[in-house]
Amino acid sequence: MNIAIIGLGLIGGSLAKSIKTYTKYRCWGMDCDQQALTKALADGAIDRKISPEQLKDAQLTIVCLHPQATVEVLLANSDHFNPQGLVIDVCGVKKAVMDAVLPTLKAKGVTFIGTHPMAGREFSGYDYATNDLFSHASFIMTPPENTPSEAIDFLERLAIELGFKRVVITTPAEHDATIAFTSQLAHVVSNGYIKSPTLKNESGFSAGSFLDLTRVARLNPAMWTQLFLYNREALLFEIDTIIKHLEEYQEALVENDGERLQYLLKIGSDLKEESLKGSH
Amino acid sequence: MNIAIIGLGLIGGSLAKSIKTYTKYRCWGMDCDQQALTKALADGAIDRKISPEQLKDAQLTIVCLHPQATVEVLLANSDHFNPQGLVIDVCGVKKAVMDAVLPTLKAKGVTFIGTHPMAGREFSGYDYATNDLFSHASFIMTPPENTPSEAIDFLERLAIELGFKRVVITTPAEHDATIAFTSQLAHVVSNGYIKSPTLKNESGFSAGSFLDLTRVARLNPAMWTQLFLYNREALLFEIDTIIKHLEEYQEALVENDGERLQYLLKIGSDLKEESLKGSH
Repeated sequence: MNIAIIGLGLIGGSLAKSIKTYTKYRCWGMDCDQQALTKALADGAIDRKISPEQLKDAQLTIVCLHPQATVEVLLANSDHFNPQGLVIDVCGVKKAVMDAVLPTLKAKGVTFIGTHPMAGREFSGYDYATNDLFSHASFIMTPPENTPSEAIDFLERLAIELGFKRVVITTPAEHDATIAFTSQLAHVVSNGYIKSPTLKNESGFSAGSFLDLTRVARLNPAMWTQLFLYNREALLFEIDTIIKHLEEYQEALVENDGERLQYLLKIGSDLKEESLKGSH
Repeated sequence: MNIAIIGLGLIGGSLAKSIKTYTKYRCWGMDCDQQALTKALADGAIDRKISPEQLKDAQLTIVCLHPQATVEVLLANSDHFNPQGLVIDVCGVKKAVMDAVLPTLKAKGVTFIGTHPMAGREFSGYDYATNDLFSHASFIMTPPENTPSEAIDFLERLAIELGFKRVVITTPAEHDATIAFTSQLAHVVSNGYIKSPTLKNESGFSAGSFLDLTRVARLNPAMWTQLFLYNREALLFEIDTIIKHLEEYQEALVENDGERLQYLLKIGSDLKEESLKGSH
């Protein structure tokens, strides 16, 4: 089995390292960044670097680029992919990417599945790639209709081999709506939280809550801008929702209404407690 | 040296355990919850339970109750405290508590210092108390004017002995303004975050960012209501500030303005990066 990875950043590099650590598959790399390729070769994260023409010998190709580049590379290489093989991407938004590439890939007979390994760090690039990035993560798949079940089964087994804790199969639209809440909103809120002018006095006054709330404030602005724009409506719904809830606490405080404030806090606390019970 | 602790909840219980683990001082306990007293005695977290009349033999009394109860207990026991000793509280707000108790305690000749051990958990009560709760925490002190320097020096040494990483001395008003941002806002935002209707689909779609953003959504509603009301203006400023910032991302998204969105994200990301450099 030959697995080609296009883009050896945090996710691509971590997939390569995980493939070489936990499986016996060959792992090939493509990247316009020569340094990343050199490092990945030196680390043994890839067995060799390849050219687009060699993609035809890969049974699985994983495109690990930012959303726009993912679409561009998938379209530009539609003639190079192995028609008997499988091609997947790892973008954090699924509907926009899949809508953009599926017609072309289908026409070439290429089997394509959108995926989203739910892991990341507040640092990007190959230098931060590790072979345990996915160890507590969900591997989400959004296979198009009529995807051969062998392709889905194969990916599921691979994800478990690579250390993912759980595989979730859903539709692109459901994925995007949920991710707007569980991931995109977190980055927006964290990035907005840190902007208070009071930040200048923070040193010595912070416990875990400040660090937790602002951990993902540090992000890759270009990548997240693409992810947000590709998922505008769902994210706008979530931003709107949290603003409305924050305004409820605000109103209770303005009115010095302790009973109302305590009621609002209890609702949130109970929801979190339920959520903790439900998670494994 | 006899140290009396009034209120053996998460903070009081953790202080008792830390005192008995890291110092040779005697530790006495008072609590209206007989179970907590019994457990603390069985754990060796306190040497004995005492009555209010015995507070006169304590060189240090630490009141570890919710804000309103702290004020009530400090006023109710003003005749019992040792006038040669030191009395401190550990509330998360300082100005309202100190304004309420200082005139009475001063009139009785009692030395009082407001403190805030910057540690906590999303669980409350003696059962969650540990002897390492403070190991990475700041110990904040807001001594009134004319506090004897020996009292401040003694508390500073004690805090270090108990494992605190750092001691910060500031005014009640500065403490409250900063804490509104670093702690209170975190609890409001986290509690509001979890209220999206999308929560019901969260399972399997969450990476670290969702868990970080919602960790402190689970809180003690009664205690936090008191803390928030005692610090209304500062907290309202912070809620107002984050809503304004969230509205900026919202506007950029509505207008599909990628350049603006990326600019807004870069400001937050840079602020977090600076903040990480500044912290130790």
